Amino acid sequence: MTIGIVGAGQLGQMLALAGYPLGLDFLFFDRSADTPAGRIAPLLAGEFHDETLLAELARRSDVISFDWENISVGALRRAAHGTRIAPPLSALAVAQDRLAEKRCFERLSIPTTRFASVDSRASLSRAVDRVGLPGVLKTRRFGYDGKGQYVLRSRADIEPAWDALGSAPLLYEEFVPFEYEVSIIGVRTRAGEIGVYPLNRNYHVDGILRLTLAPWIAPALARAAQRALHKLLEHFNYVGVLTIEFFVHRGRLLANEIAPRVHNSGHWTIEGAVTSQFENHVRAIAGLPLGATAPRGHSAMINLIGTMPAAHSFLAEPGLHWHDYRKEPRHGRKLGHCTINESTASRRTARAKQLLPRLYPQLALRP
Amino acid sequence: MTIGIVGAGQLGQMLALAGYPLGLDFLFFDRSADTPAGRIAPLLAGEFHDETLLAELARRSDVISFDWENISVGALRRAAHGTRIAPPLSALAVAQDRLAEKRCFERLSIPTTRFASVDSRASLSRAVDRVGLPGVLKTRRFGYDGKGQYVLRSRADIEPAWDALGSAPLLYEEFVPFEYEVSIIGVRTRAGEIGVYPLNRNYHVDGILRLTLAPWIAPALARAAQRALHKLLEHFNYVGVLTIEFFVHRGRLLANEIAPRVHNSGHWTIEGAVTSQFENHVRAIAGLPLGATAPRGHSAMINLIGTMPAAHSFLAEPGLHWHDYRKEPRHGRKLGHCTINESTASRRTARAKQLLPRLYPQLALRP
Repeated sequence: MTIGIVGAGQLGQMLALAGYPLGLDFLFFDRSADTPAGRIAPLLAGEFHDETLLAELARRSDVISFDWENISVGALRRAAHGTRIAPPLSALAVAQDRLAEKRCFERLSIPTTRFASVDSRASLSRAVDRVGLPGVLKTRRFGYDGKGQYVLRSRADIEPAWDALGSAPLLYEEFVPFEYEVSIIGVRTRAGEIGVYPLNRNYHVDGILRLTLAPWIAPALARAAQRALHKLLEHFNYVGVLTIEFFVHRGRLLANEIAPRVHNSGHWTIEGAVTSQFENHVRAIAGLPLGATAPRGHSAMINLIGTMPAAHSFLAEPGLHWHDYRKEPRHGRKLGHCTINESTASRRTARAKQLLPRLYPQLALRP
Repeated sequence: MTIGIVGAGQLGQMLALAGYPLGLDFLFFDRSADTPAGRIAPLLAGEFHDETLLAELARRSDVISFDWENISVGALRRAAHGTRIAPPLSALAVAQDRLAEKRCFERLSIPTTRFASVDSRASLSRAVDRVGLPGVLKTRRFGYDGKGQYVLRSRADIEPAWDALGSAPLLYEEFVPFEYEVSIIGVRTRAGEIGVYPLNRNYHVDGILRLTLAPWIAPALARAAQRALHKLLEHFNYVGVLTIEFFVHRGRLLANEIAPRVHNSGHWTIEGAVTSQFENHVRAIAGLPLGATAPRGHSAMINLIGTMPAAHSFLAEPGLHWHDYRKEPRHGRKLGHCTINESTASRRTARAKQLLPRLYPQLALRP
């Protein structure tokens, strides 16, 4: 069986590394063969809207998946010609549009921040009236890692915010002074089997995930996150891995966004869960039963951003697992990650505290 | 850095799967691209003695390793042109020749079975006089999984044994009615750092490994195995993973053979140790520090021989890990393996007992 994957980044590479032992083949589609997954699997190179290439991907694949979200739902649907696509395009379409996402949360009674659609300077002004200040103006599409956002602290910010982002469809959202961020990752098969990983606590700096601690022990939050996850998985008749990111505010969860794919905050599952998110995504979309999602010990995952540290001294750290995506260094770019795993949560957190200043000497990031 | 590997079987594939996250590239050399490792990495196809292709492998690699033993030490040395080879060819040469292996054990005072060199019908007769009956006549070279062996129970067997094997250089060895078999796997870096995995207990049927339980808790045996391993690693100034197989006889270890490579009895380390044998082999030969060799829980590894069972029902087993090498089914051929991992040894053994009759309905193999 061949799994076709649109996007050949590190997520795609980790999917292939997890799927090869199951006897599966992979075929990737990306703009360039010089990509993390292109190093280890055959790849079709072309623009993402190229329907001839998408159709070739479909023809040569038993099921199509994607490792990132900014692809054309329409082009993919037209090119697929009946080849199964998982996760469902309905979920991808919602994840691509912050407004549709917010409305989906509302419809499923999943608590989220207050918001309003913005499509003109006047409607931004009305949105600020209704939702209040401070707030965040966001593009509805193509935002990630904090890009395409503008924080409004007073009505004087309406003009510059509109000038910065007004050319795209927008959403204005309540600014929530949340205490911290968590995410939950689940997986569902075609047969309706569901697996849920424990809660992740995520630490961002400059809008980019830097550190995940998992399992994050917070039973009430975990239950609320699981409820939201089950609702979304059933709503979309979902197949594959789905991630929800939440703000934690006054002890409650507010859904921030969904990602219809394996997620950076689940990289720790490679070494820290019985079955990784990557293997379970592949199992689900290939029509296989799920593997156990139980954690093994307590993990910390640290992203390696912008420049790769010299591996040598970190590989000597007992039990540290190193993942080098072999990407060209660039400011703010995710180039790799490393994971540690300990027998207790406090030991895990203590080790993360030791490692962070070595990996991020400029950053005052402390769990 | 590119790791060149002679042989592209399942061991090579698992080396590449372990090395990709470290940012390493692989180049394989085998008779056909239709091999487990050829599915996931570039491959040079040709005969193993083809020194032009071996030289190309050397030119394109930073270090050369091998995933099986029946390759020409001379051709590899000549073709390498100074490219590093690890493990050392001196260890490969000894592993290829049962007589050299036995003499190496003797020289290092590693207990082994009594033996005698055989190069004529008359010397076989003398060897039987000296070593006694029953005994095993073995080819010195190119034997594996019980092939190239003849058991002698009386002097009447001398004639047929010689007729069967006499065309090759031979070794006659005491037949030891051993209680069971164990193996130990260790790894050494160029800097002399050594890591040792816990003892494996191995169950063979028809000369083929079927089941490994690890860690096998037997402290005195483990200490003796570690001593032997350290001696061999230092003796060869070894770099990479080395395996020793032992018979357990009257509570003592008798070294049976060495494998200068990752080993079937160490497949459980993928899910059952902090760092797998595959990753540590790659780390060692790439000049990187070792990862921890500590076990995680208690593992059972079951080989899938001759025909692949339908994956579906086994993947539904909680915490079972499936490895399909995607090889053509053939009687006695290793096509895959599966691993389970439990929190206690007794739970692990109980689950292995449940699984074995399903995977081997014809075999009365019970741990």
